[in-house]
Amino acid sequence: MPKAKKKEQPIILITNDDGITAPGIRALIEAVQHLGKVTVVAPDKPQSGMGHAVTIGHPLRLHVAHQFGDIEAYQCSGTPVDCVKLAVDKVLHRKPDICLSGINHGANHSINVIYSGTMSAALEASIESIPSIGFSLLDHSIEADFAGAKKYAAILVEHILQTNYDKHLCLNVNIPAVDEPLLKGLKVCRQAYAKYEEEFDERLDPSGKKYYWLTGAFLNFDKGKDTDVWALKNNYVSVVPVQFDLTNHELKEKLAQKIPSNVEKK
Amino acid sequence: MPKAKKKEQPIILITNDDGITAPGIRALIEAVQHLGKVTVVAPDKPQSGMGHAVTIGHPLRLHVAHQFGDIEAYQCSGTPVDCVKLAVDKVLHRKPDICLSGINHGANHSINVIYSGTMSAALEASIESIPSIGFSLLDHSIEADFAGAKKYAAILVEHILQTNYDKHLCLNVNIPAVDEPLLKGLKVCRQAYAKYEEEFDERLDPSGKKYYWLTGAFLNFDKGKDTDVWALKNNYVSVVPVQFDLTNHELKEKLAQKIPSNVEKK
Repeated sequence: MPKAKKKEQPIILITNDDGITAPGIRALIEAVQHLGKVTVVAPDKPQSGMGHAVTIGHPLRLHVAHQFGDIEAYQCSGTPVDCVKLAVDKVLHRKPDICLSGINHGANHSINVIYSGTMSAALEASIESIPSIGFSLLDHSIEADFAGAKKYAAILVEHILQTNYDKHLCLNVNIPAVDEPLLKGLKVCRQAYAKYEEEFDERLDPSGKKYYWLTGAFLNFDKGKDTDVWALKNNYVSVVPVQFDLTNHELKEKLAQKIPSNVEKK
Repeated sequence: MPKAKKKEQPIILITNDDGITAPGIRALIEAVQHLGKVTVVAPDKPQSGMGHAVTIGHPLRLHVAHQFGDIEAYQCSGTPVDCVKLAVDKVLHRKPDICLSGINHGANHSINVIYSGTMSAALEASIESIPSIGFSLLDHSIEADFAGAKKYAAILVEHILQTNYDKHLCLNVNIPAVDEPLLKGLKVCRQAYAKYEEEFDERLDPSGKKYYWLTGAFLNFDKGKDTDVWALKNNYVSVVPVQFDLTNHELKEKLAQKIPSNVEKK
């Protein structure tokens, strides 16, 4: 009698936007390596705030990285989105079963999803029909405590691998910066309506010429209790499912009625 | 009797991602300058594919640009999104009445909206409660013919300025690369479901080390006749209203039922 075929381990692709040397990516590897075969392809330098940028004006480099022991790892000269694309085409030579991004040092809730390299990497995987999760801890510190984030990352990744969701599933997961026992559990939310009120810091260089640093205050306009911002304030781990169809369907109907020249010529 | 107060001209902010020297931005200025007071703040170099990247690791420079005659113009060392933020805070010192981006040399329909610096600039304005439109012509050539694009840009901008839409209105407008008389008019659409099948071009540098160029084939999986891809193939100017709420509301409901630990502790 032939042996029952051994079930293959899931392939888990891990990337981030803080760069391959950030403690957060090591925490993510540690959190999920018992769930499958982990491969790391991450930026060789910090890429925070890179959004969904891709590198088209110059070529990319990819080098083996050795700091994760037995885990196959590469550092890439490009953006987080580049890392996902290159990993699928040139490292794995197939789609992984899941793509994880993070754990980011700092929040990516609400409108941050748009600016975040962490979440853009996850969204890129989702575009490529790879289920994905981006994780962010609300603590910018290099010495941040990832214990709670690791616990919930493991729970969530195991759940997604075992459950038959859409292949375009993409989750934006944020973890409050509190001790693990204080976390109240996972909470599925919507993206809060919030934005940054920009105020550039104008300075003079040694030659007397102006330069500007981006700064800004975070403004949450959303009083809903079903948002990620509310959940995080109340010590829940927020889970926002994210999509890459940006069509505003409500406005689409309104526009179609009002817009000029919207007549089909036969 | 006091004179009737002269109605103030609308303030029109123009940016792009091909850089301030691209013919497309000049075409956009020419198309709309009769509709208001135009101010230009655009990248000092090409920023295609920069997505919603912001510059946080180093400061920005802003210099006066002189090539548009009487039009107030600045070139910025940052990304298209940086340009919008800096324009509002340090150039206009107020929100413009509308923000226009483009005219891009090349298509930004379907999934391109995610990668596009042109559309990310428009979306950034929308986040900041400034109605916005990104324009893209389906012709990469530096010598592209913008006549049709200019005609519809003028029609659309005038309509949006005169109509009371949502302050977060953001339109992704693409124009087929055909002679102006062949254009059939504006068509309000949804974003087609399409993606790029990546295939990196692997080469060796003079030292024998590998490097990779991003290339890929565009794949449209969407057979709908209400999509931007369909409209463009049929010589319509496609108009897709775009939003910055990325929440996948459908998946949110499904997840909330299935996910573990999704119990609120009292």
